[in-house]
Amino acid sequence: MAVVENLPPTNQSKSKAPDNAGAGAELHQGSADFAKKRSHTIVNIIAAVGDGDIIFLRQLIHGLHPADIASILADIPETAARTFIRLIGEELDSEVFAELDEDTKELVLEVLPTKAVARALEDLDSDDAVAFIEELDEAERAEVLAQTSDEVRASIEGAMAFEEDTAGRLMQREFVAAPEFWNVGRTIDHMRATGEDLPDLFFEIYVVDPAFRPIGAVAVSKLMRAPRGVPLKTLMENIHVIIRPENDQEDVAYSFQKYHLISAPVVDQGGRLTGMITVDDMVQVLQEENQEDLLALAGVSDASTTDDVWSSMVARLPWLVINLVTALTSSFFISKFSGLISQIVALAVLMPMVASLGGNAGTQTLAVAVRALSARELNRNNAMKVVFREAMTGVLNGLVIATVLATVAGLWFHNPTISLTIGLAVTMNFVAAGLAGILVPLTLEKFGQDPAVSSGVIVTFVTDMVGFVAFLGLATLIVSQ
Amino acid sequence: MAVVENLPPTNQSKSKAPDNAGAGAELHQGSADFAKKRSHTIVNIIAAVGDGDIIFLRQLIHGLHPADIASILADIPETAARTFIRLIGEELDSEVFAELDEDTKELVLEVLPTKAVARALEDLDSDDAVAFIEELDEAERAEVLAQTSDEVRASIEGAMAFEEDTAGRLMQREFVAAPEFWNVGRTIDHMRATGEDLPDLFFEIYVVDPAFRPIGAVAVSKLMRAPRGVPLKTLMENIHVIIRPENDQEDVAYSFQKYHLISAPVVDQGGRLTGMITVDDMVQVLQEENQEDLLALAGVSDASTTDDVWSSMVARLPWLVINLVTALTSSFFISKFSGLISQIVALAVLMPMVASLGGNAGTQTLAVAVRALSARELNRNNAMKVVFREAMTGVLNGLVIATVLATVAGLWFHNPTISLTIGLAVTMNFVAAGLAGILVPLTLEKFGQDPAVSSGVIVTFVTDMVGFVAFLGLATLIVSQ
Repeated sequence: MAVVENLPPTNQSKSKAPDNAGAGAELHQGSADFAKKRSHTIVNIIAAVGDGDIIFLRQLIHGLHPADIASILADIPETAARTFIRLIGEELDSEVFAELDEDTKELVLEVLPTKAVARALEDLDSDDAVAFIEELDEAERAEVLAQTSDEVRASIEGAMAFEEDTAGRLMQREFVAAPEFWNVGRTIDHMRATGEDLPDLFFEIYVVDPAFRPIGAVAVSKLMRAPRGVPLKTLMENIHVIIRPENDQEDVAYSFQKYHLISAPVVDQGGRLTGMITVDDMVQVLQEENQEDLLALAGVSDASTTDDVWSSMVARLPWLVINLVTALTSSFFISKFSGLISQIVALAVLMPMVASLGGNAGTQTLAVAVRALSARELNRNNAMKVVFREAMTGVLNGLVIATVLATVAGLWFHNPTISLTIGLAVTMNFVAAGLAGILVPLTLEKFGQDPAVSSGVIVTFVTDMVGFVAFLGLATLIVSQ
Repeated sequence: MAVVENLPPTNQSKSKAPDNAGAGAELHQGSADFAKKRSHTIVNIIAAVGDGDIIFLRQLIHGLHPADIASILADIPETAARTFIRLIGEELDSEVFAELDEDTKELVLEVLPTKAVARALEDLDSDDAVAFIEELDEAERAEVLAQTSDEVRASIEGAMAFEEDTAGRLMQREFVAAPEFWNVGRTIDHMRATGEDLPDLFFEIYVVDPAFRPIGAVAVSKLMRAPRGVPLKTLMENIHVIIRPENDQEDVAYSFQKYHLISAPVVDQGGRLTGMITVDDMVQVLQEENQEDLLALAGVSDASTTDDVWSSMVARLPWLVINLVTALTSSFFISKFSGLISQIVALAVLMPMVASLGGNAGTQTLAVAVRALSARELNRNNAMKVVFREAMTGVLNGLVIATVLATVAGLWFHNPTISLTIGLAVTMNFVAAGLAGILVPLTLEKFGQDPAVSSGVIVTFVTDMVGFVAFLGLATLIVSQ
């Protein structure tokens, strides 16, 4: 649970961490320790801000990772954050700007002169600058961009021209390329001479042909080890993934995962190298996409712990309303059997179980299907096999549960027809659950919809309807014999 | 959806991809194109295997990424895979061994001489060798390890001494360290001289003190750009995360995500550098942990598309049985109201809706809570605030849904007491759903349990019970007035 973050010198570490001058941060097991130290830093920062003590404040954040500074800003009260930004916002590392959450970003834009924000953007790699700008509204964006250099503005506007969640938004325009006829020594000399314009960090150098199309890549760690005279062409390895700016970020992230990539080149329509994407951005994308799936399956459109009551209502009400409609439909069908229910109240007692068990079986299959789709494990080659397996699993689990339930119901109500009815209804509903759980997401996917988003409500509707109607319908047939 | 993988020369690309000699692979939008090409390669491979045509087979897999070769082996029929391994298994790149799934690994162990497998392990970085060995059973493991060099065996056994899912299993023992007094030139010369023993790829060099404790890191891309005379000490940056082998892989992955790390040092009890962990392994861990959460929330203990019916039954039956018990408990309470239900059948018609709507609201809150816990966004500092927000969201969404439902029920049954009853019951159940949805996972987490695993069944039980009992109980009170 616990990462001890890089702490300011005022916090003495009680752990056995090596005493790294200026370094710090060790990953610990005890979350209590972590929470305590972090709270301590926060208390000190709030106090320093209250006193307007810039010197202490500087000392407190000295050596902290930009991500930690940003997360502290998000956690302290808004007035404290506002003063913090006013006091030392202009001297913060630009990287802090890349880590801010939406609320703190708004605060920074309010408090700091636009010029200071623009200056930070100049410093950042282009992908981080885009990530910062992307979340601002039209007017704020224009105001900040007006203060940046023509070069940075052009690069940001170029990226913003691509759709959200595409590679074009995530790529950085700084990369290192070398012609195929260069050797190791010349490449290293070139990099030493270029300095400033290189990306902050890079992990491979792209070898390009005369038309600037990437034909191979050399890992920096290999380049450095090779003798100066070795031509790049003999060192370079195949590029296994070439990205286009219009590619969906989820597809790109999937490739990074599959091929264990650290970075990959982005090419334009003509196949010319125009940027690169690095794995740190893909880690964020994978995380976001996974979390979206998890929330979507539960019928939540968007969520964050910082949400207020209103946004959390808005994120959930739509699916509840849809669920209300489907539940009303089920109830309408149940009402058709009112006569029977008033004769045999046991039906009303047992009925919810048939629907609930079927619903759970459906949700299980659905989760398996959504996971497999997002991991690209489920495709047309194996779809039929998986559909068959899910149907069979449904039949078998259905038979197990149905047998137990029929026995219990028989003992409880001393009525063999009720026992038979519930056994058959549960088995039928499990098969329906298995089929719906796999066919609904497959169908949504086929029509270009996100299978995580609306599958849940459809599958539950199927298992509710089959559960109630099969049970009451069978009861009508069997009991009226 | 689609990644065009690196294809053998026999497959002509019809896309506008740059014609990269030997390179290949471009990320495309059209999944049809991708599927077609891959199927084509597979058909050719099966044919070549059938003919025992080693030369064509070599040509077909030439230039393919090890991950693609492994995934093709998993997809072709077992007999074909077996022959493939027999024909050219011994000449495959060792990296292919690191990518094999469990079934194919078994096949490789059956078909190839143990010596060949051991040879592949010698070639791999130690973390990949461990990942290969980890999944074998005791006997197979001993057999393979007996054939490896003492050095490789010691390194694998050292890693296996750490528990599963810890950093000790994932770290590689190859890394680059340099004393703080070295300069850039000496460091580079040292690496050129060491050659073989360096890791396959690395992204930073750890600067160590005389006790071999890491005190800073220099990115390889910075080292290469710096003049030879610059001391490492002036180039190095703070290390923000130091890992211990016993750390949980999920905690490590979280740090990689938070600090955008590419690699991080692992230290032993004495703080001495013993290994490093790289981001590619963390991408797998994040993916696995996310998928586990998604499946666990739906009540599936483990799943893969390659599962047979039996394993997929076993993965799901336990939760279905627990659900059966909770559903029976609910039914038992419903049966206490049999008299009332037989008088007013409308209660039986409406009752499932109260439980179903509450269940959905509970699942929504639960998904939000599990996501926030896994993203480390929910902690003791903000727990009370989030609990309050969830309760309020419950009240408000409950009031909205209750109002609509009470109106519909009133119009349907022309009975204001039923209308009032269902309205109150739904509101109460939404509050219970909000509270259970957040308190259950928080409590499980507090007692060291995985909140994703058993929260679902508990929350649904709460909303079922509150739904049925509140509705029927209120009906007894209100109707009997």
